Amino acid sequence: MAVSTIEWEDGRIKLIDQTLLPNEFKQIYCDDLPTIWEAIKSLRVRGAPAIGIAGALGAVLGIWNSQAESYDEFAAELKSAVDYLATSRPTAVNLFWALDRISRIAEEYKDLAISDLKGVLLSEAQIIIEEDKAMCRAIGQHGMALLNENDTILTHCNAGGLATSDYGTALAVMFSAHDAGKKISVFADETRPLLQGARLTTWELMQAGIDVTLICDNMAAQVMKEGKIQCVIVGADRIAANGDTANKIGTYNVAILAEAHDIPFYVAAPTSTLDYALATGEEIPIEQRSADEVTEGFGKLTAPKGVKVYSPAFDVTPASLVTAIITEKGVARPPYKVSLQALQDT
Amino acid sequence: MAVSTIEWEDGRIKLIDQTLLPNEFKQIYCDDLPTIWEAIKSLRVRGAPAIGIAGALGAVLGIWNSQAESYDEFAAELKSAVDYLATSRPTAVNLFWALDRISRIAEEYKDLAISDLKGVLLSEAQIIIEEDKAMCRAIGQHGMALLNENDTILTHCNAGGLATSDYGTALAVMFSAHDAGKKISVFADETRPLLQGARLTTWELMQAGIDVTLICDNMAAQVMKEGKIQCVIVGADRIAANGDTANKIGTYNVAILAEAHDIPFYVAAPTSTLDYALATGEEIPIEQRSADEVTEGFGKLTAPKGVKVYSPAFDVTPASLVTAIITEKGVARPPYKVSLQALQDT
Repeated sequence: MAVSTIEWEDGRIKLIDQTLLPNEFKQIYCDDLPTIWEAIKSLRVRGAPAIGIAGALGAVLGIWNSQAESYDEFAAELKSAVDYLATSRPTAVNLFWALDRISRIAEEYKDLAISDLKGVLLSEAQIIIEEDKAMCRAIGQHGMALLNENDTILTHCNAGGLATSDYGTALAVMFSAHDAGKKISVFADETRPLLQGARLTTWELMQAGIDVTLICDNMAAQVMKEGKIQCVIVGADRIAANGDTANKIGTYNVAILAEAHDIPFYVAAPTSTLDYALATGEEIPIEQRSADEVTEGFGKLTAPKGVKVYSPAFDVTPASLVTAIITEKGVARPPYKVSLQALQDT
Repeated sequence: MAVSTIEWEDGRIKLIDQTLLPNEFKQIYCDDLPTIWEAIKSLRVRGAPAIGIAGALGAVLGIWNSQAESYDEFAAELKSAVDYLATSRPTAVNLFWALDRISRIAEEYKDLAISDLKGVLLSEAQIIIEEDKAMCRAIGQHGMALLNENDTILTHCNAGGLATSDYGTALAVMFSAHDAGKKISVFADETRPLLQGARLTTWELMQAGIDVTLICDNMAAQVMKEGKIQCVIVGADRIAANGDTANKIGTYNVAILAEAHDIPFYVAAPTSTLDYALATGEEIPIEQRSADEVTEGFGKLTAPKGVKVYSPAFDVTPASLVTAIITEKGVARPPYKVSLQALQDT
């Protein structure tokens, strides 16, 4: 993206307040721990990689003005910041991963002067950001080779730059193709109940100057039938060893429609999303989200009071419906048990 | 339904104001032509059969207090009412059909005294209502034979009593089964963009005491995969001679998902919906609806200002995906060119 989702600027954290999108684009500054904690908690910053970065930068922010005179004093301040930040989104795996990484680096460089140690921690947070950017760009490069001139791509939910520090995953393929001068267009599913496609994906693509058209989720089959779609690209929350892919609810739906219309269905995700401990996607429990999101997600009641609601948070697309998985290390094709393992080993 | 969608009561028209559902149940009275005109125009009454009935009752309302002393004078007043009502929804075929039918009856009984003629016209409007009720009940009877005890049915949009004078079409099957003591449950797609499933179908089924669960359109595949659905039943706007079925956008989507999960897909519609002049559904032009319905349908903007939107009003499900078509004359199965013609001839 032209503007960073989240970055360090002169001793404070600057981030796009995603709760205001698409109606308002506003970057906010977090000068202290409670402000970044609240930003994570309230989803002003969202998406696994972006939350990890918010955690790492938050930990640095926590010690940036430290007056500690010994490492022990400094380490206690860092631990206090890390423990506090960990309570902002207690289920975000990337948050804990990033906080741990910063803590380990502090321990590793404990013999440095405190002022130098601060610089090392900031540098580590910047490395996390750079690694994330490199991952996005590599997914984009590998994926764009799958696109032809004038292709129109259907995507679901938001696997874009707003969830990462840079180009995202599924959207990285589109950004990279656009950068390379390939003419492409995109159809974006609105993605009920939370409308990430309508609110975020369309916004990101419009910002980048990529032609994008919004549809309701139930229009995808008709758009495919009209010959408008050349491929589907979606992100992933978790990929099993056999290629079964967990992603936002409605992804499995789109995968079936793509197969029925002979349209390739691609998953774009970093190899960190692969979970070899899972033999198949059948083992992934699917949690239910709140009924309110369906019945009054937009500030007014759109269904009878007290109606029963079934709202799975995500679904699992069987590997048999996935044409290829685009990672930062390359493109895996069936059989995934072999190809994903080979990618991991490179 | 326990309460009539629309009926004649002591010289005026009483109808459920559907724009207030599901938040408020209110029946309004139309005492004069402008009020019923506005009710049709503003979708307080909606659905092809119900609009036809509103037109027939509206025409009667237009002459109910006529002081005409000759048939010519009376006929001029009727024509003026009919022409006015025809402007309320200029694309509603059933409206014109009903207005014509009332006009023809007036001409046929022109030799009666004016006061008797008024009674004949009201009686004709009541016959239209009775025919509609009989049609709904017959569809319900034929369809319920396809259901087993404890079946759960998925439906899309609202092909219910609110669109007719009585039990509707797709929902008639569920109402009839429930009346007959069959234990059934229903999943209702919310049906974006206008949410007729969330707002109306759930309301009707809850009123009838039928177990209903609301889902977003993109959750249907997951619900099917979990084995929760035994069959799909939807309504139809228009059916071609070969069985291709035009219905609310998203119907084709559901039909593909049903086939992928080996779930029977039934269409319930009166034979008046059959259009033998259409060899196939390919010939049906699909109109676009307003972008606002998608981007600000919930009362606030949910997508970037100025985003391109593609919003087909309906889609066409190919006959190859339709397990059977339930009509008031019986159930047609493939090949539909033969079976639908045979039904029509009975």
